Amino acid sequence: MSIDEVVDRADRGRVTLQVIAGKLDVSTATVSLALRDSPVVAEATKARVQALARELGYIYNRSAASLRTARTNMIAVGFHDITNPYFAEMLVAVEETAAEAGRTILLGTYAESLERQERVLGTLKEYRPDGMILCPAGGATAESLNHLTAARIPVVQISREIDGVGLDFVGSDDEMGADLAIGHLVDLGHTRIAMIGGNDAISTGRARHRGYRAALQRRGLPFDPALVYMDYGSRQTGLAGIQAVLDLPDPPTAAFCFNDLTAFGALLGLRHRMREAGVDFSIVGCDDVQEAAQWYPALTTVRNHHAEMGRRAAELLIERIENPDLPPRRVLIAPELIVRASTVKR
Amino acid sequence: MSIDEVVDRADRGRVTLQVIAGKLDVSTATVSLALRDSPVVAEATKARVQALARELGYIYNRSAASLRTARTNMIAVGFHDITNPYFAEMLVAVEETAAEAGRTILLGTYAESLERQERVLGTLKEYRPDGMILCPAGGATAESLNHLTAARIPVVQISREIDGVGLDFVGSDDEMGADLAIGHLVDLGHTRIAMIGGNDAISTGRARHRGYRAALQRRGLPFDPALVYMDYGSRQTGLAGIQAVLDLPDPPTAAFCFNDLTAFGALLGLRHRMREAGVDFSIVGCDDVQEAAQWYPALTTVRNHHAEMGRRAAELLIERIENPDLPPRRVLIAPELIVRASTVKR
Repeated sequence: MSIDEVVDRADRGRVTLQVIAGKLDVSTATVSLALRDSPVVAEATKARVQALARELGYIYNRSAASLRTARTNMIAVGFHDITNPYFAEMLVAVEETAAEAGRTILLGTYAESLERQERVLGTLKEYRPDGMILCPAGGATAESLNHLTAARIPVVQISREIDGVGLDFVGSDDEMGADLAIGHLVDLGHTRIAMIGGNDAISTGRARHRGYRAALQRRGLPFDPALVYMDYGSRQTGLAGIQAVLDLPDPPTAAFCFNDLTAFGALLGLRHRMREAGVDFSIVGCDDVQEAAQWYPALTTVRNHHAEMGRRAAELLIERIENPDLPPRRVLIAPELIVRASTVKR
Repeated sequence: MSIDEVVDRADRGRVTLQVIAGKLDVSTATVSLALRDSPVVAEATKARVQALARELGYIYNRSAASLRTARTNMIAVGFHDITNPYFAEMLVAVEETAAEAGRTILLGTYAESLERQERVLGTLKEYRPDGMILCPAGGATAESLNHLTAARIPVVQISREIDGVGLDFVGSDDEMGADLAIGHLVDLGHTRIAMIGGNDAISTGRARHRGYRAALQRRGLPFDPALVYMDYGSRQTGLAGIQAVLDLPDPPTAAFCFNDLTAFGALLGLRHRMREAGVDFSIVGCDDVQEAAQWYPALTTVRNHHAEMGRRAAELLIERIENPDLPPRRVLIAPELIVRASTVKR
């Protein structure tokens, strides 16, 4: 039994190579070659086969193609969260770049649950994607990706990085981003600057907190742990965190937020305390999602180039699929400060 | 050549059934049956095969499984936009429901471009998904989905509906939603009520505009076309639309927005005119995305139960895959009004 025959047998009820072959009185091999535009089939026969295939609604079978080539042309994407516009916008960039290269996205999400991540990545793997792009859940370790590396599936990590896993990574230079934010606030005269959001379970949380402390130290300002409110970056964290630090005996006059979502929550939380960013308080976000420019006040933030990050991750993965023996690459994209209306002189 | 052998040949460089069979000195058929837990293989042999497969990192090959069963266990999802949290949150519900039923999501997006939609749906089709869930781009016609129905691929439309296409549909009762919004505003004493966002290219745009006009008429209020600002629902549309109607000689005192994104833009646009929702203007949104409750003022909106919509769409599709001859079903979910702080007495 040939591959084509195996595939045809599985195509019960659909238009198959055999149906086309029968109607034109040629072999299934001829039909298969004609549909792949092989030079060994006469032009006239090819034209007849291709016209009939179109007419009957024949669909190219990628399962069969993947058996021939050992490629599925699928890229699996595992993200912890796509309801954060940062990751939704990044995913669109991954998907568009993959589509341009003839690849389609298999999607799995797992919130911040390691147990769901384990299950989702296991399932995605069974579809035999040519490679994977992952943003791991908080607390993920190198061991949690061992089953992928053992199966020699090319993997690119995006945005969040697991230490010592030896895989390609594309992210932003988060310590530099924190330094840009703190530098801007210090230039405006602020000396008590809170940090809202982010935690030690994710590399971006660790790096932005490290950057915040280093930036204060570099400018001769003391570090006050009371000004740090740690949690996953969400609107809710910003809403709660800004109110918590405003209620301190010696409150801050400015805050650097872990991400834009946290900053949007903080902008709203300020109003609950009858304060307004850009008037009597300063807020700096991190990410620059589309929404940031539309806020009133428009958000001053650190642009992490997340669409570029998505594009680069897809490109790195496609290169690695072609050339699995490349050494691991670590691409850190330099962020930039976008000054808008949510920051003001002290 | 058996299916297993065809598959093994395609698995160059990976741990295959043949590798396991060779190491244990049994046939590939025995390995294949043992991995599928067949009762015809002795328990002791099964245990040895399964242990070695785990140890070597053997991955179940879904391409092969799909040749055996003519099922891929993939559900293709085509959405026009996932950066709108309404669709991102809906997609998460689709994906979680599909995952519970052992299916994985193939994702394609196409903004509002019919040309991209054509290309994306054509590619998704080639992966032989067991079915598709679609939210079509604006202006899509029954003809644009003909190639899917001709190929007898089960399709469920979600949120947006194409007239006369004869496919399953899950959406909200949009005319009822508009009536709930206008009724609430009229109860608060408003008589000049704008409608911001939505257009005739999509069924939700047509239905919400129809509902707006019918609701005014039902309450004896005149329809003034100057109060209608039509465009796709986005933050930008809300920002521009609210300012356009406020600049009229006889401006409105309230607005019903096509969706929450538009309403968030309108809340910000009001501030550009030194106005504030819930104080001297009233805004009602439509969707109730997670962000709506977090705004300051928190958004009064029409809850469309979009997570429920995602779940129901996945369930309908799985039923249709099992039973392709079911008559087309049309599920309209009743919306409800959620009164928060963005509306106030005139």
